[in-house]
Formats: sequence, C-alpha cells, structure tokens
Amino acid sequence: MDGLELVSSNKIYGGFQKVYSHESSELKCKMNFSIYLPPQAEGGDTKLPVIFYLSGLTCTEQNFISKSGFQRYAAEHGIVVVGPDTSPRGVKIQGDDKSWDFGISAGFYLDASKEPWSSNYRMGSYLNKELYDLIISAFGNVVDPARIGIMGHSMGGHGALISVLRNPGQYKSVSAFAPICNPSTCPWGVKAFTGYLGENKNEWKEWDATELVKKYNGPPLTLFLDQGAADKFYIEKQLQPEILVEACRSVGVPVILNVRDGYDHLYYYISTFIAEHFDFHAKILKA
Amino acid sequence: MDGLELVSSNKIYGGFQKVYSHESSELKCKMNFSIYLPPQAEGGDTKLPVIFYLSGLTCTEQNFISKSGFQRYAAEHGIVVVGPDTSPRGVKIQGDDKSWDFGISAGFYLDASKEPWSSNYRMGSYLNKELYDLIISAFGNVVDPARIGIMGHSMGGHGALISVLRNPGQYKSVSAFAPICNPSTCPWGVKAFTGYLGENKNEWKEWDATELVKKYNGPPLTLFLDQGAADKFYIEKQLQPEILVEACRSVGVPVILNVRDGYDHLYYYISTFIAEHFDFHAKILKA
Repeated sequence: MDGLELVSSNKIYGGFQKVYSHESSELKCKMNFSIYLPPQAEGGDTKLPVIFYLSGLTCTEQNFISKSGFQRYAAEHGIVVVGPDTSPRGVKIQGDDKSWDFGISAGFYLDASKEPWSSNYRMGSYLNKELYDLIISAFGNVVDPARIGIMGHSMGGHGALISVLRNPGQYKSVSAFAPICNPSTCPWGVKAFTGYLGENKNEWKEWDATELVKKYNGPPLTLFLDQGAADKFYIEKQLQPEILVEACRSVGVPVILNVRDGYDHLYYYISTFIAEHFDFHAKILKA
Repeated sequence: MDGLELVSSNKIYGGFQKVYSHESSELKCKMNFSIYLPPQAEGGDTKLPVIFYLSGLTCTEQNFISKSGFQRYAAEHGIVVVGPDTSPRGVKIQGDDKSWDFGISAGFYLDASKEPWSSNYRMGSYLNKELYDLIISAFGNVVDPARIGIMGHSMGGHGALISVLRNPGQYKSVSAFAPICNPSTCPWGVKAFTGYLGENKNEWKEWDATELVKKYNGPPLTLFLDQGAADKFYIEKQLQPEILVEACRSVGVPVILNVRDGYDHLYYYISTFIAEHFDFHAKILKA
C-alpha cells in the first residue's frame, strides 16, 4: 500500500492500533507513524474524520498510543487518529544526539533553513504535505479529507498550532495540551529556532503561533488550549499560554484556555482530559 | 510513614498516582510499589475498597499505571489500587538476569524453597503478608481492610489466583487477564517451578491455581477470567484457562471466562476491558 510497511497491529477498543513505516522524501529517511482505525472503519463504506496528534520532546510515535488511552474516545466518536514521529531518524547529523531538546526527537515541526539541518529536518513539510497526502491516498477508503483536525502536546502542541495557522483550511479543528505557545521567547524555542533557522528573527515569526495568529486570515477557527497548573515547564515559562491568549484576543480569534489545578506535564494529565479534547474535535468535525 | 519513601506523585482523574519505595524484610531489598488514591481518598474520612494488581513477566510497577488507563475507573468507583513490583530488585543472584521469564521481573508470586533463590525470592509472603499489612497500616485512614480484591495479568493473573486460593477470605474478589492457569504443565511454569521449587511436584501443586481450586474450601468466590483469542501465548498453551475452568466446574467453584475475539496479550487488550474488571470488583467490594 503506497510503500507502507506494517510494523504492528493490535486490537484495542474494537478497532486497530497500527504502526507503519515508510521512506520519507522530505526527511530522506525511514519514518514510523501510528494510525488508529476505529471499529467504524471496518468495511470501509463510511468516510471518517481524522485527527493528527503531534507528540512532544523525547517522544516517538509510541508514547501517545500506549499511554493516553485516546482509543476509547476515537472508537466512541468514530475518528481515525494519526501520529507521526517527532524528528527524522537515523540520519546522523553532527550534534543531533547531544541534547534531548534539539536534534533527534526534537524536530519542532518546522522546516530548518540552516545547515546542516536543512536537508533532513523538514518536519513541517513532512507533516503538512507528505504525511497528510499519504494518509489521504493510502487510507482513501476510510478517511474524509474534508474533516481533518490536529492536536498535540508540548512541542507537539506548538506543532499543531503552527500547522493550523500556516495552512488555513487544511485542518478544521485544533487543540493543544501544554503547548509551547511563543517559542521565540522561551529557552526551548530560542535554542531550537537558533539551531534550525539561524539568527534572523523575522524567520522565527513564521513558526511561532503567537506571531502567526496575529496575521491569520483563514476560515473561522477556535484554539482550544489546555494547561496543567502544576506543570513545571509552565511555571518556568517555557509554555506561556497567556501570551498566545492575549495575541488571539488582540485580533479576535476565539480561544479557550483551560488551566487544570494540580496537573503536571505528563501523560497522566493528558489521559485525564483527552476525552474533552475528542469531544471538542468531534463537535466540529462531525457537525 | 512506616519507612515509606515517596518516589513520585502525579495527579490523574482527580486523584493521585503515587509510587513509594520501602525496605522489604521478606525480600531483603528495596522495593517500589504503586498506589492510586482516588479523589474520594481526600480528607480521609471514608474508608475505601482496595484492589491489588499484579503485573506480568518483564514488568515493573510502572507498566500498569502508565498503560492501562485504570485510574478513570478507580476514580469512578472510589477504589484504591496497589501494584507491587514483579520480583526482588538488586539482590544479584547468579543467573537472575539470564532470561526474561526467570529471576529478575519473574518472581511468580511464590516463595522459593530452592537455593540460591529461597532467601530473597519470597514474593508470595511479600505480597500476601508484608505489603498487604503495610498498606493497611500505612494507609489505614483511607483503606478498608474488609474490602480488598486482587487482579493481575499473565504471570500476575497466576499470582492473583493463587493468592486468593491460598489465603481464603483475605481477598473478597479476584479477576485475571490472560492468567497462567496451570503453571505445572506449561513451559513458563515448569521452568519457574523447577528453578524456584525444585523437582518435587507435590510442592508445585501449592502454587498452581488449577490444583489449589480443587481443594479450596474458603468463603464463596467467583473467578473472573479474561483471555484474548489472538494472544500468541494462549495459542502456545502457556495460559490454558480451559483447564482451570474445568477444575472449577469439577468442584463447583463459580468461574467466568470471557474470550475476546481478535485481542492479544498486551496492554492494548487490558485497557479495553479494564473497565469491566473494575465493575466486577466494585459489585462485590461495594455490595
């Protein structure tokens, strides 16, 4: 099927959690992605909505599918869920394994413009063009290209937000757990943007949700943001949802920010609120 | 608190998933265990039921708490959930790390009688005496000693079944996912029993659920067994629930066996049916 190789398939909540690998032309390496096919996908006579889920720093496509418990809600709503990996794999660029917040498993869902990263670290185009198109073509009997949403966690929350803002209309719904909201002004983001994009801060604005929302003029969109109040990265100002909320309000883009008392940054937190996020997406994608 | 050291605490579904470590006198080493305190535990003025959960081969106390999603159901029912590790840790016995199905993370919830295992590999007494008593004393303001159940997966399903059958009345409810039902006659069990107990097969009978149920004469008990039909270990006859069911029927012990079409041996399977198991235990423990 379109160069896809099945890595694993496990029944869960009546559907199948699958992992495939494929050769990516954008990233010039072999990549894994996960896809959950809910029970409604069987037979293939109904086209279902899709949600892309983007993981955070240090993750692969495995964390979300084994720890969040999302399959229960995807099965209830009849939604296909796709999860890419978080960076190119196995390309061996000098320095790519030196830190947990840059290089391997830290692709930041952008297209690098600086050497030596620019030829492989193209997660933005990989996600929004190559994988997006691949899902629509390879699973064309199951997925409805007109009803695709996106969500993510931490670095992946940033990825979800910039993907929806940079590609108006391509995703109909968006939500984020503990997203990095203004990477140009937090330590993780400054490190990543300096490394992947260089010193030109005008270029940074093209990959920063807080900057992008200020010039968004696509179809109506509500940003659904979630944040644990006991998240140490929130407290250390890596995430800064308030800055994004202020930017949204300044330009009239609807935004919801749920701050969850006592919750931290981990999948324990995500698993508690993943049902609410699926409800939010389903309301839009199944309207 | 009684020599307990807090390793981690994370909010999930309104309660807290905690991990503690303590020095075990039975095992002569430091052990971790998990405890989920549901939201109903706050304040400490209601005593709640408890379920012990025993993990399978290769696991620690982490797998179940991060992959099964049980916390949603423990929170809904108001049940405390305790999960021990699967073997002594850090005791360094020759050969303890040579295979994944014997030694480290493969304690089989029994008391070894054969050297060199007999001084540390006492998971039976650790679970049913030391940890059981520790939970009741250290969490005495929260747990109700009269309403304790037990469940487990694979090797841990075996552990749950033998614990309830060897200690009549100590656990009021029992269920098992893909349990090793007749270890005396399957490759995993023969290897473990030979190693921990030696060649005397009369001794094996004391740690084999199928043998123990034939002479059970404790309080009324229903065994709730669950099995994925696509589980390769089931197909290879490591698990053999039908043999246990036959033994139960021969002596009139009520038994339920749910065979789940298409499901395998992993946490994807467990997470799909964990809600049913909590419903089963809650019906008994909250009657």
